[in-house]
Amino acid sequence: MKKILIIGAGRSATALIQYTLKEAEKNGWFVTVADADPEQAEKKVNGHPNGRATWLDVNKTNDRREELTKVDVVVSLLPAHLHILVAKDCIQLKKHLITASYVSKEMYKLGEAARSNNLIFMGEMGLDPGIDHMSAMQTIHEIREKGGDIQAFRSYTGGLIAPESDNNPWHYKFTWNPRNVVQAGQGTAQYLEDGKYKYIPYNRLFGESHLVDIPGMGEYDAYANRDSLLYRSIYGLDDIPNILRATLRYKGFCGAWHALVQLGLTDSSYPIVESDQMTYFDLVEAYLGSNYKGGTIRDRVANFLGVEVFSDVMDKLEWLGLFRKKKIKAKNATPATILLELLLDKWKLSPEDKDMIIMHHEFEYLMDGKKKLRTSTMILKGEDSVDTAMSRLVGLPLGIFVKLVMQGKIKAKGVQIPVRSEIYEPVLKELEDYGVVFKEVEKDI
Amino acid sequence: MKKILIIGAGRSATALIQYTLKEAEKNGWFVTVADADPEQAEKKVNGHPNGRATWLDVNKTNDRREELTKVDVVVSLLPAHLHILVAKDCIQLKKHLITASYVSKEMYKLGEAARSNNLIFMGEMGLDPGIDHMSAMQTIHEIREKGGDIQAFRSYTGGLIAPESDNNPWHYKFTWNPRNVVQAGQGTAQYLEDGKYKYIPYNRLFGESHLVDIPGMGEYDAYANRDSLLYRSIYGLDDIPNILRATLRYKGFCGAWHALVQLGLTDSSYPIVESDQMTYFDLVEAYLGSNYKGGTIRDRVANFLGVEVFSDVMDKLEWLGLFRKKKIKAKNATPATILLELLLDKWKLSPEDKDMIIMHHEFEYLMDGKKKLRTSTMILKGEDSVDTAMSRLVGLPLGIFVKLVMQGKIKAKGVQIPVRSEIYEPVLKELEDYGVVFKEVEKDI
Repeated sequence: MKKILIIGAGRSATALIQYTLKEAEKNGWFVTVADADPEQAEKKVNGHPNGRATWLDVNKTNDRREELTKVDVVVSLLPAHLHILVAKDCIQLKKHLITASYVSKEMYKLGEAARSNNLIFMGEMGLDPGIDHMSAMQTIHEIREKGGDIQAFRSYTGGLIAPESDNNPWHYKFTWNPRNVVQAGQGTAQYLEDGKYKYIPYNRLFGESHLVDIPGMGEYDAYANRDSLLYRSIYGLDDIPNILRATLRYKGFCGAWHALVQLGLTDSSYPIVESDQMTYFDLVEAYLGSNYKGGTIRDRVANFLGVEVFSDVMDKLEWLGLFRKKKIKAKNATPATILLELLLDKWKLSPEDKDMIIMHHEFEYLMDGKKKLRTSTMILKGEDSVDTAMSRLVGLPLGIFVKLVMQGKIKAKGVQIPVRSEIYEPVLKELEDYGVVFKEVEKDI
Repeated sequence: MKKILIIGAGRSATALIQYTLKEAEKNGWFVTVADADPEQAEKKVNGHPNGRATWLDVNKTNDRREELTKVDVVVSLLPAHLHILVAKDCIQLKKHLITASYVSKEMYKLGEAARSNNLIFMGEMGLDPGIDHMSAMQTIHEIREKGGDIQAFRSYTGGLIAPESDNNPWHYKFTWNPRNVVQAGQGTAQYLEDGKYKYIPYNRLFGESHLVDIPGMGEYDAYANRDSLLYRSIYGLDDIPNILRATLRYKGFCGAWHALVQLGLTDSSYPIVESDQMTYFDLVEAYLGSNYKGGTIRDRVANFLGVEVFSDVMDKLEWLGLFRKKKIKAKNATPATILLELLLDKWKLSPEDKDMIIMHHEFEYLMDGKKKLRTSTMILKGEDSVDTAMSRLVGLPLGIFVKLVMQGKIKAKGVQIPVRSEIYEPVLKELEDYGVVFKEVEKDI
């Protein structure tokens, strides 16, 4: 009996575990789900005859290796920095490894060892990174094959709340890791425009968002992701003059988030002394500097931000409760942690809330002397706060790829990301059965 | 014969070495000056009968210990992170240690060992930190002794170009470590105002400078230093409602430096790809984002900054050459390194240029029901670009303190900074002979 090990049974594992158990039943495989919280693993396996749950502390080398020894393919849903532990074992024990995380430099270094052991180490096999690579590469290859010369590639992804569950002025709720949302964009965004490098430092990033029209959905805010330049060579677009990867939010989100960044409330690099002795009002005042005196706190913040007192941005800040004299709970916490605590309460999903993923690519290319714009757009909504579109779109590509490897259908070896047709064709094809459909539109421009 | 070791013979060592050799001659001591560049050390010792120069690579443990073994007192002018190497040897070999650097947490941990070995490890014995501590504590103790209740302490220091050598629109030249000037202020400034914490993130710091009147000199820009809160307990001012340490620049400097920060040109965290293929014009354009199109680069930058095209800030930026199509030399360099290269050329001291140090303290206190303001101000100019006020004000306190230790006049043991009267009284008194005079003014407010 061929065996699969899934390490990690958290929120983002639901769709993966369900899919893999179903395929295990069909194909006569066996699935072990390992987690530091064995009850969580138990719950997700739910007594399935082709599965078992087990306790695993991944930092315990012997326990980890014992589980790995028994199986053929390993899926790691661990925090990204822990994959390398598992990967080194996988080389030694000769197991395939699949993750949804960005491939680290350290992981790339294992490429030769994986290849010479006839193993595939597949990374970036989730949604973003994952489905974005696969759907973009499919179109890039198609345009290239018919002789098109790609001049611009822009890719937008947003993990959003569905319109029918959107009932707050930010038009946002947490549908994935809240801490990552608070720290999103830190560093400097880099992209290419008209053949020129563009750099946007974090403190300007959300202030310099732009609007993108999503076919059938209207306009959304988009802010640049940090690493657009990296994708030129990965996508085979080395000479492309325009490349941008960006994140989507509902219109108005970025301007208001920019206000939080400007104040300094997203910084996680130092603690606020005795923060539990302060109110949110005090905290905001502490960041107003000495130059903004007179009037209510709302007047002063508006003055500091250079926006109208009665404006959308100020309404959003007020709704968060930042101007209230309510005690902060966390002690000696960083500004980012204090903000996160507030947002966890304000942006919490209700049980029936549906999330929504939008992925949208734009390709500009020249063919037969004409300039064309192709757009490719995928929209998927979740069922409720547990069965989210996010969980499905991270888990299903992983699950489908596990199946392909188990069936011996993948020839590629070594450290890979899903940019080859051998990989993206069968994965995208099966994803269609789950409603993951890219609608393409093409026009002359 | 009692012996002194000075490690480091760079620019800031000149005044220290001269002073120490002079005192060695008077007192029958011997001074060894050790540096990785023995010629530099040789030049500074200059054949003095009470001194010798020697080569020392401080990372070579045996060589380092051999030099330490021979002496009684060690002065380390090494980069701050290297002091700890020397300090650990000093514990083992039972030598006193003196530095001008901020005392690190690691260094504080050696306090008990130093004390039990009857050693003094004196840190922060230069200008800032150093003379600022000593002069502030002298006044704080005096006000306290006569029964005053200190309500506010603000301390300002600037390493500036003297007015007679000021011939550029920034009114600034490099009189100390240029790299530190480019990176100054990174992090978040923290201070207390009316009993409330105030935080200013780096990206706002230079935009939120304020003007300070220096008696007899006029108004200067001041921007907050990062660590004002730390000094409450060190100065015995735990309950003070107002404390601020700040840096002085000529009026207009901070607004223009803020423009460089906003653009992103002071960031040292990532390299610009192929920067040697770009001009300064290209670099600035790369940071302008996509929203600032149309007009000259000067128009666009002014538009981005929200300032007039013909304004002081824009004149300063233009004078730097940031809008010129001149090739950048450094390859794959960080923005901060590219900026530094440009500034090294533009802000270079001419041989005859004089620098100027301003140190200015403000103490507000209550006495007999009245509110009083005491100011204490010291201004010192250098002789030329080698014999700078900066070098003297860093080196002389170190030298004087070495003498006091050699003469057995210091009772304090363990890790110290100069906040006790036993230390600051004799040092400040002798500094007066070198023109280091604080003028005090007091008035009712």
